[in-house]
Amino acid sequence: MDEINLSEIKSPADIRKMSLPELTKLAAEMRSALLEKLSAHGGHIGPNLGMVEAIIALHYVFDTPQDKVVFDVSHQTYPHKMLTGRMDAFTDPAKYDEVTGYTNPSESPYDLYSLGHTSSAVALAAGIAKARDLQGGKENVIAVIGDGSLSGGVAFEGLDYGATLGTNFIVVVNDNQMSIAENHGGIYADLRLLRHSNGTAEPNLFRAMGYGYRYVNYGNDLKSLIEMFRSVKDIDHPVVVHINTMKGMGLPAAEANKEEFHYGGPFDLKTGTPLHEDNPKDETEDYSDVFAKGMLRRMKENDKVVTITAATPGVLGFDPARRKEAGKQFIDVGIAEQSAVDVASGLAKGGMRPVVGFVSSFLQRAYDQFSQDIALNKQPATFVVFYGTMFGMNDETHLGFFDISLLSNIPNLLYLAPTCKEEFDSMLDWAVRQNELAVVIRTPGAIANANPAIELLDDYSTPKYDIVRQGENVALIGAGSMFAFMEHAADNLSSQGVNVTLINPRNLSTLDSAALDTLKDYKVVVTAEDGIVDGGYGQKVASYLGEAPVKVVNLGLPKQFLNRYDYSELQEKCGLTPEQIADIVLDALK
Amino acid sequence: MDEINLSEIKSPADIRKMSLPELTKLAAEMRSALLEKLSAHGGHIGPNLGMVEAIIALHYVFDTPQDKVVFDVSHQTYPHKMLTGRMDAFTDPAKYDEVTGYTNPSESPYDLYSLGHTSSAVALAAGIAKARDLQGGKENVIAVIGDGSLSGGVAFEGLDYGATLGTNFIVVVNDNQMSIAENHGGIYADLRLLRHSNGTAEPNLFRAMGYGYRYVNYGNDLKSLIEMFRSVKDIDHPVVVHINTMKGMGLPAAEANKEEFHYGGPFDLKTGTPLHEDNPKDETEDYSDVFAKGMLRRMKENDKVVTITAATPGVLGFDPARRKEAGKQFIDVGIAEQSAVDVASGLAKGGMRPVVGFVSSFLQRAYDQFSQDIALNKQPATFVVFYGTMFGMNDETHLGFFDISLLSNIPNLLYLAPTCKEEFDSMLDWAVRQNELAVVIRTPGAIANANPAIELLDDYSTPKYDIVRQGENVALIGAGSMFAFMEHAADNLSSQGVNVTLINPRNLSTLDSAALDTLKDYKVVVTAEDGIVDGGYGQKVASYLGEAPVKVVNLGLPKQFLNRYDYSELQEKCGLTPEQIADIVLDALK
Repeated sequence: MDEINLSEIKSPADIRKMSLPELTKLAAEMRSALLEKLSAHGGHIGPNLGMVEAIIALHYVFDTPQDKVVFDVSHQTYPHKMLTGRMDAFTDPAKYDEVTGYTNPSESPYDLYSLGHTSSAVALAAGIAKARDLQGGKENVIAVIGDGSLSGGVAFEGLDYGATLGTNFIVVVNDNQMSIAENHGGIYADLRLLRHSNGTAEPNLFRAMGYGYRYVNYGNDLKSLIEMFRSVKDIDHPVVVHINTMKGMGLPAAEANKEEFHYGGPFDLKTGTPLHEDNPKDETEDYSDVFAKGMLRRMKENDKVVTITAATPGVLGFDPARRKEAGKQFIDVGIAEQSAVDVASGLAKGGMRPVVGFVSSFLQRAYDQFSQDIALNKQPATFVVFYGTMFGMNDETHLGFFDISLLSNIPNLLYLAPTCKEEFDSMLDWAVRQNELAVVIRTPGAIANANPAIELLDDYSTPKYDIVRQGENVALIGAGSMFAFMEHAADNLSSQGVNVTLINPRNLSTLDSAALDTLKDYKVVVTAEDGIVDGGYGQKVASYLGEAPVKVVNLGLPKQFLNRYDYSELQEKCGLTPEQIADIVLDALK
Repeated sequence: MDEINLSEIKSPADIRKMSLPELTKLAAEMRSALLEKLSAHGGHIGPNLGMVEAIIALHYVFDTPQDKVVFDVSHQTYPHKMLTGRMDAFTDPAKYDEVTGYTNPSESPYDLYSLGHTSSAVALAAGIAKARDLQGGKENVIAVIGDGSLSGGVAFEGLDYGATLGTNFIVVVNDNQMSIAENHGGIYADLRLLRHSNGTAEPNLFRAMGYGYRYVNYGNDLKSLIEMFRSVKDIDHPVVVHINTMKGMGLPAAEANKEEFHYGGPFDLKTGTPLHEDNPKDETEDYSDVFAKGMLRRMKENDKVVTITAATPGVLGFDPARRKEAGKQFIDVGIAEQSAVDVASGLAKGGMRPVVGFVSSFLQRAYDQFSQDIALNKQPATFVVFYGTMFGMNDETHLGFFDISLLSNIPNLLYLAPTCKEEFDSMLDWAVRQNELAVVIRTPGAIANANPAIELLDDYSTPKYDIVRQGENVALIGAGSMFAFMEHAADNLSSQGVNVTLINPRNLSTLDSAALDTLKDYKVVVTAEDGIVDGGYGQKVASYLGEAPVKVVNLGLPKQFLNRYDYSELQEKCGLTPEQIADIVLDALK
């Protein structure tokens, strides 16, 4: 058997001539390279380690890129990138950052979509298959989706539609028995039953939806996978291939602790111990910690309070120990943002006090439920937004700066933007205490910043701006995490003899018209928010002051999808540094 | 047996003492009253006629309102309203309008939610059941959902979560073998199999999701229903009760033509013939007609063009005859807005030219797919928005004035607002012709208005305002359906010696900065849009002109859920009549 030289693999054609022993050796070497990169660089650990064999088998059996594969959420596609012309980005440390963490059509014709939200691959692939059928094509169309992603509503919608195609359509269900954390939902009992019966049991969710069904118990065994994929290649009807894989395979720590190693930073390759944990916890407290500690207290004080997540308990600061401590008062509905909101609505209707935590980029999957089932129906549920900031996730699929314009324009939904952890806690305490309003609270950035001097309120139901400093002619209104930059700008201006009014608006959904009325004769009002300007808070202010002589400048982000941007560069590009803000004011005063 | 006097039925307690023959007579009389009202008043015909017996049986067996029933979409709840204190609204023509067409908590404690979008009831009820469990309650919690609504992703999410409750949770699946039109999706083969096997077949979707399962083949037979509901009352685990009902039962025309009689206006009670169809079609052409005729032409000219609906083909003007004419180029994905968008994305990726038609209020269910799978991935699909107007649907659950602020703030998504049918056709022709951009086109109101003099473009990709009249000092910018009112206001002002610049902005997502720059020294710019001001088009203009001396006034709707409002009153309340617009200008010029 020839040695496998990873650097010689430029495309799937290079593996299609290999023997099974060679492929097996390839898998081992790819896994080693992956471990090397992941341990030094971080990334999605478990999902990729578990899919090395399945991705080799897919490219070995199918004629990619003529045959089309859509990878759901695509955080399992490092092995796919290795086989499709991007090996160097996994073997050469100098090139580690040359590829994104997700499929990306600008990198390769083998990548059909830029995907980072779960559950959409089946519907997307069904559309591709339909396009093929309407044009008389013959290629295979394959969706690869994890068991965790299956719980998302659009996955079900895609399966439901895909079953009607009546032609070649292959759905590979990568069942590693995990979501990000453990799975939650009725379908997982069926998946377990299928695994434990070697795929023979009834009921069978996939058959019930109209699919043929095949099961591979050894989903990390190349021979089994290749035989199975060969058996469904060119099949003439929709089929589910259910493969049982080992998340984190090859890294004992990741096999043993799947949640912690779903995604992570650099680690010690021998022990799995995360690196870069030098700072004691109390110095780097983030809003996940603040939230979880506060919610544990609130849940103890009031047994009607519950905390809800849609499969991202870690983002909410609820590690397994805290989940255990919360007991029945912690609810994970699985990757199912829509039902997270609706279950919260039902809980509120039933007299409980639900608090749902969401990643900014994921809450947009539940807009209709926010609008119809929470806001229209005035259900007193509370929602906390994490990573709703330009300083958070910077992959184009996970951007955190659209949620203000998304949620603040829904009637009856109070959108609060605290500026520090004291204010965050105060607002959340109030939101859980009151029983009238639906409230969204946006964590101000990632690291929990303290401001003991802040003026807190007992009631945040009506908009009341905090006039932190009273100046003249110039007002700086800094929302949420932008308040700190505005404060620095105010200091800067003060040192130049310009005393400005500095405002923390607290509320992004309804204007404090009394406060704004006092600014009508000012020379300039500058707003800054940690989100796109379009549809956001500042434009409401500009509109309200549209007939007044005061100049209004709205600062924030452009309406663009950005990818892996540099935080400081973006801040500067948007004119959001304190120096730039001060210059804007000085210019406007000229 | 006593006579049944409908007017004596004030609450379910009044039917719980009835014998089966009395209940049967009650059902007949309720159906007669319903037919009388529906024939005179219109409304949801088929869904209510089919559910008379099941709703009687539910209130007969369960201790409502202590036992809680959430009705999905709630357009089948006229019989429920009759039994829960609102009989007069169905028997006294003077009171026909005293109840809404949906459940409404402000009407009755028996109505838990104001619901008009499908598929949410299971998740909502699951939340209510969870609240019960956490508080040690014992009441039954029931979700009633139709087969058509089952295809919505949130229905699946709710079923998936509900299965994990492990306690009393009853999902009644009202299977009338119809959505609004015929059903589409893999699950319907399973429902058919279950019906044809008297509920015994495998695979069984509901068992696969973790539910107990019971089947009632005669879902309009009170005895069968009562026995079944008694058998599951106080059950200690989640169960699906699948009932086979007859949509439109009791009105032969509705039984025979279920799609036409899903919802409709007044009809001849003997023949079912719709009334009020005096005007020949060509005089009352609406945008459904314009769209369908145009799409049939486009699909004939180019076999890559496809038209897609999520279960509302009638809204798109595609009646059964036109669907037949379109053949494979017409795709109905069922009530599944998310997959409608993703299937369109896949079709575009596969080289087709997809055009999806949506009701304004329903497209909000697919925000994440618009953002991630269309816009981020730059897929050249086209979306047409129907009823995106204050002059369309006026139930609080179906409002058409939120879509501008929802969609126009998504990057890479071009939101076009034609002002007349010529412009609509021109924009849609261009959208289907080009292959680069994702485009949303909003039909301007309901009735198709002509304007043969309008200036059309060959390419709408970059914002280019149509300066319809050049005046001085005053600009009126009227978006979409608001353009006509602005034009009348301009006439009004002209007659008073004020010559204004009149602008059709065409594009609501990106500003024509060159055109706006010419307005900076004007005295006043007024924008008007057929949607909420917050997050909308006008606020972008106010922000852009924020530093210029020009006054900016943004007209549009307040950020509120309104219910069954009067169109003219609302228009006046918003200052959107031509006279009011003229007065605003005159005031600003003072």
